[in-house]
Amino acid sequence: MKPHLGTVAIVGVGLLGGSLGLALKDRGLATRVRGVGRRQEVIDTALGLNAIDEGTLDLAGAMKGADLVVLCTPAALVPEQLDIVRTRIAPHVVVTDVASTKAEICAHVRTNWSEPYRFVGSHPMAGSEKYGPEHATPHLYDGCITIVEPLGDHARDAHDTVCTLWRAVGSRVVEIAPRQHDGIVARTSHIPHIVAALVAELAAGGGDVKDLVGKGFRDVTRIAEGRAEIWRDICLTNREAIAEGLREFGEQVGAVRELIEQGQAAELDAFFVSAQAARRRALGE
Amino acid sequence: MKPHLGTVAIVGVGLLGGSLGLALKDRGLATRVRGVGRRQEVIDTALGLNAIDEGTLDLAGAMKGADLVVLCTPAALVPEQLDIVRTRIAPHVVVTDVASTKAEICAHVRTNWSEPYRFVGSHPMAGSEKYGPEHATPHLYDGCITIVEPLGDHARDAHDTVCTLWRAVGSRVVEIAPRQHDGIVARTSHIPHIVAALVAELAAGGGDVKDLVGKGFRDVTRIAEGRAEIWRDICLTNREAIAEGLREFGEQVGAVRELIEQGQAAELDAFFVSAQAARRRALGE
Repeated sequence: MKPHLGTVAIVGVGLLGGSLGLALKDRGLATRVRGVGRRQEVIDTALGLNAIDEGTLDLAGAMKGADLVVLCTPAALVPEQLDIVRTRIAPHVVVTDVASTKAEICAHVRTNWSEPYRFVGSHPMAGSEKYGPEHATPHLYDGCITIVEPLGDHARDAHDTVCTLWRAVGSRVVEIAPRQHDGIVARTSHIPHIVAALVAELAAGGGDVKDLVGKGFRDVTRIAEGRAEIWRDICLTNREAIAEGLREFGEQVGAVRELIEQGQAAELDAFFVSAQAARRRALGE
Repeated sequence: MKPHLGTVAIVGVGLLGGSLGLALKDRGLATRVRGVGRRQEVIDTALGLNAIDEGTLDLAGAMKGADLVVLCTPAALVPEQLDIVRTRIAPHVVVTDVASTKAEICAHVRTNWSEPYRFVGSHPMAGSEKYGPEHATPHLYDGCITIVEPLGDHARDAHDTVCTLWRAVGSRVVEIAPRQHDGIVARTSHIPHIVAALVAELAAGGGDVKDLVGKGFRDVTRIAEGRAEIWRDICLTNREAIAEGLREFGEQVGAVRELIEQGQAAELDAFFVSAQAARRRALGE
């Protein structure tokens, strides 16, 4: 049976929010999709793509009549938006978000909202280096994993609704606690992104290198094309885990440099073999 | 007018050597393509794919009747193979290689061969994380850039033949001196590869992370699937440039870590914006 999510307010109608709107409308999951933006031109693009039924710049006003609110804005904006949302929603309303860092946001809710919580944090592992509603697609969430907070101290119906939402748009839901989530994604997503940016900088520091860049460089650095604002906020909202991972990473860079300086053939061979096994392990292959 | 390269001996019939054989045969550029291997099963695979007309494990013997010799083996093997080749070839023979590091190989030739040199180092910027003749394709070199040593102290006809070879299989030839080449590819290829391997190790160190790896991780780490032996040899034959670049890279990792620890929002934003510009500059976009 197809779930009915009522009036869904999507706050932030970029790639993730726009795609969610398209997926909801495409599958007939919502009575109405309301988009909330910070810039009229983004709202207009989302309206033009039929990703939302109506659009507004007024976050507080957009809560009137909403049944489900999904915040699709950069992580650092979510807490203050949640403060506005909390005071304006009806008691039955369910709230979630899509930010790539969860601990800070979920802790904020526990400080300011009352139990049982009707905000349930989500992180759909979708998207790429592209951004903006112009790249939105109703299939963005098809086959992706969405991390959702475990039930814990949440209202059961709110938790159910959030899981239903993600499953209905094609995701597989995996429950992981916020701090654990942030610790892992620091290593699987945030640091890889920072490293991709550093690799791009290092190459460009070599002068006119364009004749000597191949597919490898292109692949390694692709995600550096992501939106700076998003990644800045990820760094700021997952500081501890990223800093810890970067410290370990920096030490490993130094260790490999020493192997190279010392010409340690067998150790270098073992390093590259072990990295392949590590990659496959990380990918669950 | 189609060039005629005579009997071409390809030493090492993996992805690069096998693809070269297929390209030569596909385009009718050689009278005969002779494959030289270290393992009979690889020779058999190359023969089965029709990438070579005949195959042998005997490098010295394979020089008899050859007009052009192309070494497609890992960089560290090239000098000793060149020593064998040098003593066995007829005076008109032209020799080149495809190794990703050039300074050590080209310096070896200058120490052991006599001027004007009939060995002209090449580096086709083709290939990927795949290896072995089973992945060979006649189109591997189509549209890729091949770096060739400048004429300098080489025999002009040998230099012409090597440039002709690469153009005939679809490459654009760019002339760059060996040391300069190695300094640049350390930053555009070798360090990105090492970093991809380190990113894979860091992620796997997070335990069971498979539900939290996305497309970004897959892209960043893809080249870590390359053949360990090749990359070990690249590290060993381009030690100075890689070590210098890794030192700079490690310092930058530390600098970004400090920005994150200190919560420097504007600087982090600027870092991600600047990295995008750097990537596009490196790609010549």
